[in-house]
Amino acid sequence: VSWQHDGNGALRKVKDVRTHVGEVLALFREHGELSRTDVIDVSGLSRSTVNQRLGALHAAGLITDIGGGSSTGGRPSSRFAFNRSRAAFLTVDIGATGFVAALCDLGGEPFAHTQRSIDVWEGPRAVLALVDSAFAELLERSDAPEVWGIGIGVPGPVEFRAGRVVNPPIMTGWDGFDIAGWFAGYGVPVVVENDANSRAVAESRPRGADAVRHDDLISLKLGTGIGSGLVFNGQIIRGSDGAAGDIGHTRATASDSSAPLPCRCGNVGCVEAYAGGWALIRDLAAVGVPAADVAEVVSLVRRGNIEAVRLVRQAGRLLGDAVADLVSILNPGSIILSGQLAECGEVLLSGVRERVYQRSLPLATRNLSILVSSLGEFAGVTGLALITADQLFGTDNIDSLLTRLVPAA
Amino acid sequence: VSWQHDGNGALRKVKDVRTHVGEVLALFREHGELSRTDVIDVSGLSRSTVNQRLGALHAAGLITDIGGGSSTGGRPSSRFAFNRSRAAFLTVDIGATGFVAALCDLGGEPFAHTQRSIDVWEGPRAVLALVDSAFAELLERSDAPEVWGIGIGVPGPVEFRAGRVVNPPIMTGWDGFDIAGWFAGYGVPVVVENDANSRAVAESRPRGADAVRHDDLISLKLGTGIGSGLVFNGQIIRGSDGAAGDIGHTRATASDSSAPLPCRCGNVGCVEAYAGGWALIRDLAAVGVPAADVAEVVSLVRRGNIEAVRLVRQAGRLLGDAVADLVSILNPGSIILSGQLAECGEVLLSGVRERVYQRSLPLATRNLSILVSSLGEFAGVTGLALITADQLFGTDNIDSLLTRLVPAA
Repeated sequence: VSWQHDGNGALRKVKDVRTHVGEVLALFREHGELSRTDVIDVSGLSRSTVNQRLGALHAAGLITDIGGGSSTGGRPSSRFAFNRSRAAFLTVDIGATGFVAALCDLGGEPFAHTQRSIDVWEGPRAVLALVDSAFAELLERSDAPEVWGIGIGVPGPVEFRAGRVVNPPIMTGWDGFDIAGWFAGYGVPVVVENDANSRAVAESRPRGADAVRHDDLISLKLGTGIGSGLVFNGQIIRGSDGAAGDIGHTRATASDSSAPLPCRCGNVGCVEAYAGGWALIRDLAAVGVPAADVAEVVSLVRRGNIEAVRLVRQAGRLLGDAVADLVSILNPGSIILSGQLAECGEVLLSGVRERVYQRSLPLATRNLSILVSSLGEFAGVTGLALITADQLFGTDNIDSLLTRLVPAA
Repeated sequence: VSWQHDGNGALRKVKDVRTHVGEVLALFREHGELSRTDVIDVSGLSRSTVNQRLGALHAAGLITDIGGGSSTGGRPSSRFAFNRSRAAFLTVDIGATGFVAALCDLGGEPFAHTQRSIDVWEGPRAVLALVDSAFAELLERSDAPEVWGIGIGVPGPVEFRAGRVVNPPIMTGWDGFDIAGWFAGYGVPVVVENDANSRAVAESRPRGADAVRHDDLISLKLGTGIGSGLVFNGQIIRGSDGAAGDIGHTRATASDSSAPLPCRCGNVGCVEAYAGGWALIRDLAAVGVPAADVAEVVSLVRRGNIEAVRLVRQAGRLLGDAVADLVSILNPGSIILSGQLAECGEVLLSGVRERVYQRSLPLATRNLSILVSSLGEFAGVTGLALITADQLFGTDNIDSLLTRLVPAA
């Protein structure tokens, strides 16, 4: 792509000189290893151009020569691999009551992590100061790797280009705060993304040799609150104002005729007010089963506490009701649950499945999978690293990165 | 883009030789006119490469030289315009009870059209034979223009790559029928698309000099039935099985405690069974106001018939209820109504607006517009021509088109 539109339909010049180097790198990011011949075949570029692109990526240390390819006689074509450990991304997946911070390699894999308990209502300065200290700890523990970017995940709607939270239903005090600006001192690009969106990206990308991309999926983040991330046609749907995916504050289907329950967002009757982690803690307390946090709810379910199992199953059904119409209309290939509450596994999943298969159009559920993420607590940071890499290695920015890495080039 | 993934994540070679000629043509398709200097500035390509690309497009007759550009002294830079009338597309927008067939120019503008009444339940052979005769009439009337592609819109889920209808809730007898194959005799590429998707594409593209792209929109087609097309990030969301957008057969919010109404799809309680054109005809009959078709319903509303106004307003509210959660979760920038029933204008629109603004999350409606399409009965064929052009002029196919047009090149 040699030009791009800004938000107003005007054209903006984008240098084309090295476009293909970004596309060649994208091949390695997706496939890990490729021979010179593979790159020529797949890209359709001439051998001399491919040699030049591979040379530039190799000089920058972004790919490494891993020796001869699968020779079928004649001279073996040399093979190259994406050098995931060339540098790292600092990432943090902020939830309502805690965060996971991690150093991830360029392929999105976390190799060092730490956690903190927080209260997101204490506002951005208090929370981001803790993030700074967690980042410092990670950098110290990991022999100060080169950091090429920072990815911040937050549980609210994000204006992606500006790196700000906008009109969050929760996260009082964060509205309009310049999160990207807070991290300016690191001197690297900063990406701010909604927590559920980053998980959706992590789920959509292939993992392992035979894995495939999931181009159409809904990711549900179930923690203290409830969020969803939508990836369709392989891209995050952010919506016109960055508010897409906010399923937790849509209206729950009333299971009985009682008055709608108040939500922590100030409204009543939200899905979160019935099926969110905080609502489960409230309901457990009401039946005399105390749980201090979502981790304890999960632990109660795992130990087979009857009330906890009943409430979580019921939450799954309500969640399934909320997702069912979305499935009918968007026809995703998979729904993937992550977040602390997802650790309840089948107890939660069975309720979601029951209602989605019951209520969604048959056409839309023929090939649908509903599963718990295999990424565990690292779903968020993995996605953040991938989104940061997409930005850094995208055709807009790859030129300046390469110029910095190989000044003579 | 120089390579593409097939459905299984495998890479497929795509020739790169003329990629940029497709991208240069895309510039003209969007902007209409550009000077040589504009193209150099916007594309970032070298002057000599741009000269070569413009030469190829000019030789093929896809752009025409329209003389000197806005000179600021010195030699004027020559200007070129997209030659929309170089050839034409045959398009047909099939509804449940009739179709509009049109010859459209390469920019999607219809310049000759005809209509037929049909019954989509008579099956593909009967209906497509009528389409053939309509196409023949158009070609005869228009001095046999060169036809470069065919676009067929149908009121059901489409497997886009295969050009077939799959598991339609209505359209009995069409399931799996090879629609693209039916038109093989024309010897040009055939695109088959869901009717609401084609409308969504038509609405999303800029029209006129200062118009902007609408990257995130929901298009509602309101005729005998109800369909929706979703364009987000500028792309149609087809979903994993091509079933996305089927809002007409999602569950309607029950306004009272009476039994859910039967739908023509065989299910009960669908949105269409309350707010579809056929349901309005049924409800008008029940109060002693006969209407033979949707056109008569519209005419009754326009003449101020009290029952018709009341029922259409009520249908608008029910439709608004069905769309409200979708707005909360997808955060579109606009909702655009088209189809015969949309000719009811404000009577219908006010009900939709009332419920969407009442029930959707405030965040998601801050910048939302809800309007009736300005494309009238041509929304479908315009979108079909644009989708056909996207295919024909895309980087996959532009090479072979240019080779055919300028064999020496």
